[in-house]
Amino acid sequence: MQVTKVALVGMGTVGAGVARLLIDHGDRTGRHAGRILWVEEVVVADPKKARDYALPKTVTLSDDLSRITNNPEIKIVAHLVGGLEPARTIMLKLLESGKDVVTANKALLAEHGPEIFDRARELGRAIAFDAAVAGGIPIITNISQCFSANQILSLRGILNGTSNFIVSQMDEQGETYAEALKEAQQRGYAEADPTMDVSGADAAQKLAILAHLAFGAQVHWNDIPRVGIDTLDAADLHYARELNYRIKLIAVAKLRDSGLELHVTPNLVKIGTPLAEVRLAYNAISVVGDAVGSIFFHGLGAGQMPTASAVVADMIDMAVGRTPITFRTVELWSKSEARVQQCDHSALPSRFYIRLTVEDRPGVLAEVTGVLGKHQISIASVIQHEPSEEDGGQSIVPLVIMTAQATEGATQKAMAEIGKLTSVRPNAVRMRVLD
Amino acid sequence: MQVTKVALVGMGTVGAGVARLLIDHGDRTGRHAGRILWVEEVVVADPKKARDYALPKTVTLSDDLSRITNNPEIKIVAHLVGGLEPARTIMLKLLESGKDVVTANKALLAEHGPEIFDRARELGRAIAFDAAVAGGIPIITNISQCFSANQILSLRGILNGTSNFIVSQMDEQGETYAEALKEAQQRGYAEADPTMDVSGADAAQKLAILAHLAFGAQVHWNDIPRVGIDTLDAADLHYARELNYRIKLIAVAKLRDSGLELHVTPNLVKIGTPLAEVRLAYNAISVVGDAVGSIFFHGLGAGQMPTASAVVADMIDMAVGRTPITFRTVELWSKSEARVQQCDHSALPSRFYIRLTVEDRPGVLAEVTGVLGKHQISIASVIQHEPSEEDGGQSIVPLVIMTAQATEGATQKAMAEIGKLTSVRPNAVRMRVLD
Repeated sequence: MQVTKVALVGMGTVGAGVARLLIDHGDRTGRHAGRILWVEEVVVADPKKARDYALPKTVTLSDDLSRITNNPEIKIVAHLVGGLEPARTIMLKLLESGKDVVTANKALLAEHGPEIFDRARELGRAIAFDAAVAGGIPIITNISQCFSANQILSLRGILNGTSNFIVSQMDEQGETYAEALKEAQQRGYAEADPTMDVSGADAAQKLAILAHLAFGAQVHWNDIPRVGIDTLDAADLHYARELNYRIKLIAVAKLRDSGLELHVTPNLVKIGTPLAEVRLAYNAISVVGDAVGSIFFHGLGAGQMPTASAVVADMIDMAVGRTPITFRTVELWSKSEARVQQCDHSALPSRFYIRLTVEDRPGVLAEVTGVLGKHQISIASVIQHEPSEEDGGQSIVPLVIMTAQATEGATQKAMAEIGKLTSVRPNAVRMRVLD
Repeated sequence: MQVTKVALVGMGTVGAGVARLLIDHGDRTGRHAGRILWVEEVVVADPKKARDYALPKTVTLSDDLSRITNNPEIKIVAHLVGGLEPARTIMLKLLESGKDVVTANKALLAEHGPEIFDRARELGRAIAFDAAVAGGIPIITNISQCFSANQILSLRGILNGTSNFIVSQMDEQGETYAEALKEAQQRGYAEADPTMDVSGADAAQKLAILAHLAFGAQVHWNDIPRVGIDTLDAADLHYARELNYRIKLIAVAKLRDSGLELHVTPNLVKIGTPLAEVRLAYNAISVVGDAVGSIFFHGLGAGQMPTASAVVADMIDMAVGRTPITFRTVELWSKSEARVQQCDHSALPSRFYIRLTVEDRPGVLAEVTGVLGKHQISIASVIQHEPSEEDGGQSIVPLVIMTAQATEGATQKAMAEIGKLTSVRPNAVRMRVLD
């Protein structure tokens, strides 16, 4: 059987999984690629570090990237280095030495996609990155290949497993945010510094990549409006459930007449709908195409073997020649103009969930609803329970309002104004309700 | 922009959708294929018949297949002819005249796959068929490409939208089988003769194709044990719900030590699990791979535009060269030996739902459970309601039993023996409970 020599840069959790699949399960690769993907070199920062997978003696483990870049027999490299540097420099060196590259580094693509993809095109090389978004769910291949006859109308996804795990634990186990975060860290779902995950930044990076593929948008991930789950209060999970919703961190890209709607925010999602039922560290994506209709994907968005599964599938596609074709025909991050512009966030319509803490005395509800009315915001429903707390001798009550369709801008302005009412305490909450 | 000339054979519902996507939305094809797919010829049995889509004057509509086979400029043909003949002959003529072919005809592949694929290989041609299984859900591409690093462990799917629609209507609207079938026919989900759909034969054909792709099985669809939904009684939907299950027609392919488990049968599926929540004419497939874990797909499994979406994606893949690579590397229906054999159906373990109508007198439950015990079948739970009917002066009651794990063979034998008890009426029901 034909042999294609490959190499790995980086052998952390995912790298060890990739090595295991290529080396221990070479028969699969043989069956699907019609050739063996032979691991020739593994390059890591510290070759002495203990690894999750014991490489056979046929593989050289070193910290010397030139063993790959100077070896013309190595055709394909799995680039499994996180962060921006030295990941970017390594990526460029690999391309410049004639390698096709498979990567799982979404931050690198979201930050330096245009530079890296342009360089790959100049050099006649290809890059594959299905592992960079939603781990084991092959959403990149499905969007760039399987739905190519469609105008994609919308993407809605749970793209950050860490956040979803934390919210699930808060919702189902009654844990506080701090407890759920700690459990996520103990299980290896969350980093010591969880900021990228819980702030929505990680999901925004993935959304920027998907929006580029599906809509031809060229939006920097940091320009996508985002709210994380790090300020989520267990009380809102409780009230949401009372209204028959769960709260999920949802990434949305939706084509509107005015442009592309893009945001990552906690949303109330109706119980019983597919996205509401995504639990623990799972990811899910709902794609609507004008021909195919609604297609829903659910699977593990991270973890060693799901991510390795995506990396090795990309390596096989690269070896047999499918990825180079896709890379040439789909003009990724090219210098051509964006096909769609991000639309004005403040004009976006949605239903909203609003929770206020108000003084329990006559006239307060009228004051609050008066402000909403002034901003043309209709109320769909209100929950007001018995007073349960006191604050400075004044008994206070939670007031939960579901609005009819209103705009981001109008609700923001109304909230600012409501915040100034003397009868309203300063911990107001406003969240989108998913259509 | 480069032009690839294509043709359509057949222009029924799906063909009209394909023509619409290629002709009215050529910009999409341009964007994803880097070329125009130019529709040169459409060949149909009766060119005078009214069509769902008005072809522009640039396209020749005829009943003359030689206009395609004699035109060497036409490279790719969408073969959208149903049934076995003349579909098979047309397929072979297209291949022999040098065309690559995209088809949605699952019956043709399930029946004549080996002959057709061998002929294509001999001739150096390629066939794509993602539209043949699960319509808009790109399950063929996902299994043969995206999960190629995995040993697939199991596939479980709702592959027949007609059956799912009928069962959903019976379950949710309280309709009888006959009423729900009539509604499915009125909505265009079911044929005048619905046998292929409601007998499980259509799902078995799709399962045979998936089992071939995912496991290397070479099982004729008619050798897959199947039970349809045409004998489903509304009472069982009711009892299932009482036990927190729904009933769904489920196609299963699962790797076991003894071989490949294959069957299409109505199953009790736990409420809240993804397959239980698939409603109306939707399809869904749950794939478990040893690396990727469990991946769930949900979408429209039939209909004009979802199926056309899959056909046009295949035409684009063919035009850019991806499909020919897949076709060469994945040895579809080759003469090589099957990688796995179908395992002994009677030895397959499952939990079972059993419903009997028994006489309401002391000792009957003991008789029935005695027979089950003799066959080593443990009982997990029993529902027995108040007697509600009389039969020949004897009041009779429904007796619903959920077994623990037992084999097909043992439960079949036990049911035959139970059927001989004088206290048991002859309408016994036995269904698998999905794990």
